[in-house]
Amino acid sequence: MKGIRQLAEHLDISIGTVSRALNGKPDVNDETRRRVLAAAEELGYVANQSGRSLRQGMTNVIGLMLEVSRETIENSDDFFLGVTDGLQSVFSRHKLDLVMLPCPDDEDPHEYLKRMVARRLVDALILSATRRTDRRIELLEKARIPFVALGRSASGGSYTWMDLDFEGVAARGVDRLVAKGHRRIAVAAPSSDINLGYLFVDAYRQALQRHGIAFDPALVIRVKSSEQGGYQAGHELLMIEERPTAIILIHELMAIGLYRRLAEAGIVPGRDLAVVGFREEPRTHFLQPTLTSFRMSLRDLGAQLGETLLATMPAYADHYPQGARNRIWPLELVPGESDAFTLNQKNRA
Amino acid sequence: MKGIRQLAEHLDISIGTVSRALNGKPDVNDETRRRVLAAAEELGYVANQSGRSLRQGMTNVIGLMLEVSRETIENSDDFFLGVTDGLQSVFSRHKLDLVMLPCPDDEDPHEYLKRMVARRLVDALILSATRRTDRRIELLEKARIPFVALGRSASGGSYTWMDLDFEGVAARGVDRLVAKGHRRIAVAAPSSDINLGYLFVDAYRQALQRHGIAFDPALVIRVKSSEQGGYQAGHELLMIEERPTAIILIHELMAIGLYRRLAEAGIVPGRDLAVVGFREEPRTHFLQPTLTSFRMSLRDLGAQLGETLLATMPAYADHYPQGARNRIWPLELVPGESDAFTLNQKNRA
Repeated sequence: MKGIRQLAEHLDISIGTVSRALNGKPDVNDETRRRVLAAAEELGYVANQSGRSLRQGMTNVIGLMLEVSRETIENSDDFFLGVTDGLQSVFSRHKLDLVMLPCPDDEDPHEYLKRMVARRLVDALILSATRRTDRRIELLEKARIPFVALGRSASGGSYTWMDLDFEGVAARGVDRLVAKGHRRIAVAAPSSDINLGYLFVDAYRQALQRHGIAFDPALVIRVKSSEQGGYQAGHELLMIEERPTAIILIHELMAIGLYRRLAEAGIVPGRDLAVVGFREEPRTHFLQPTLTSFRMSLRDLGAQLGETLLATMPAYADHYPQGARNRIWPLELVPGESDAFTLNQKNRA
Repeated sequence: MKGIRQLAEHLDISIGTVSRALNGKPDVNDETRRRVLAAAEELGYVANQSGRSLRQGMTNVIGLMLEVSRETIENSDDFFLGVTDGLQSVFSRHKLDLVMLPCPDDEDPHEYLKRMVARRLVDALILSATRRTDRRIELLEKARIPFVALGRSASGGSYTWMDLDFEGVAARGVDRLVAKGHRRIAVAAPSSDINLGYLFVDAYRQALQRHGIAFDPALVIRVKSSEQGGYQAGHELLMIEERPTAIILIHELMAIGLYRRLAEAGIVPGRDLAVVGFREEPRTHFLQPTLTSFRMSLRDLGAQLGETLLATMPAYADHYPQGARNRIWPLELVPGESDAFTLNQKNRA
């Protein structure tokens, strides 16, 4: 890392000229400007620390960190674009801009975030895809950077988070299926250590307990959160000895792959197997029979997330007195045909 | 906008203390630091211009500008995440990071970009969704910010661009259908002023001409670039008096909506109507009958786009001697069942 002095020496040009070239002043000829900028990039010139630090907290930009795996690419859904829309509707009130920070698949999210913090691109951050143990939370706490986590975690102190009501989905799914006579209810849960998987399976187990149904670990099918994962879940379900009569899914796109695997086996959702999907998504609208799933407004979630974040930032907190608290975001059940049938006594035996 | 002096006066604290607080120095107590940062945000404090300008060209961050409309949200496909993956594979060689800049639906892309340039977040930019006339190109040329456009435009001087081979898709689509005996070939083209629509329809018209087929404007169906647009295209196609026997689509997700509309009318692709889709997408894999479409690697496109951009930046140009030239990205035809039938003489009459 070089400063302006080293740059001037290297180019054999006065510091004043180098500074004017870097500052885009008009009294520098094009050729000199080009040489200075090229050398600055080449030598890894870094503006003096005070100049950089002065910007801290004043970029007027908020970052949304995303994880971009091969899996997310192939299964891109409307979730983050929808949330972005809501976030921007709030940030624009304060002339704040949103940038998306895509963490590559092959990089450790903690290391990536560390670098983003060092780059001082943003005043505040939104984390997504929180893990059970998530070191990113301590990192931001220590760096005193305002943030909100979209997703809970066992890590960190008293940070602010928002999360979907995974427990509510699991409980209402089980209640609904039990009311229709089902007792062997499988779940398709994520195979990763994403925190929502823990929350969901815990809530599922508790709901079964409320109904006096023993928890059977064989009915927790661990697959990828994707269409392909749904296909795999269908495949594994068909191989379970005493086959479940119902399944609850924990990712929006799983239903598409599951329907495909069931069709291959001649099994019709809502007639031969009850299926409760997760979040209603444009793509799942095309499924036949229609899918029982849960509705939410991504834009409203994004707007609430934006307000919650601003409530944690001193300059904006006054505008959002109710904002800086943790929130579970509700989802509304939308009944479809996929879990329409009721088990009679003969089936149950 | 306030400077450090106004900030110190407002807080009745010395400039030195304010500066140390803003710089994150340890010898400032927490309460003072909080007050300073809060006031800085509140008063819209901006670091002095020289401090900001010194960072120009040295952020080591590249921006990818996206347009986020309601339509893109509901139709999110794998395109930009796939390209991002390829871009990052190149940028990481040089310790450069990529951020995505989502332009909100209700904002003018030119105004948005102007603000992003003023924020000096990034060293270089990639534009997407280029319009026939696109003022963003002149803006970046004038600001001397290195950029590559993913998409052509009639605007600007000798800027660098990459684009998909829309002409090739149109020409091969027409050739293939004519070889199977079709002469009434419709196209579903975008209703917006996105430049690719012009390129595609021009190439379609030229291909018809090569085969001695008169261009019929009634066969150019203008719809949204989405599933819904595909549905609408199907609807309009069915109302054309002398119904076309084939259709070529110019957006990957149109096929899904088109298939749905055709199914409603009892029309089977590949038996009653020949359908040539655009880019092969994970979602179109599920279509039955299988879709004739065009294959490309998004990751490779992203990597080439990244190299092309770096070739326009003085500090990296040496690494990419072949890079800074305009490129048309090829797509490979993947035959499916959707255009399998051949018209016999009777049909043609």
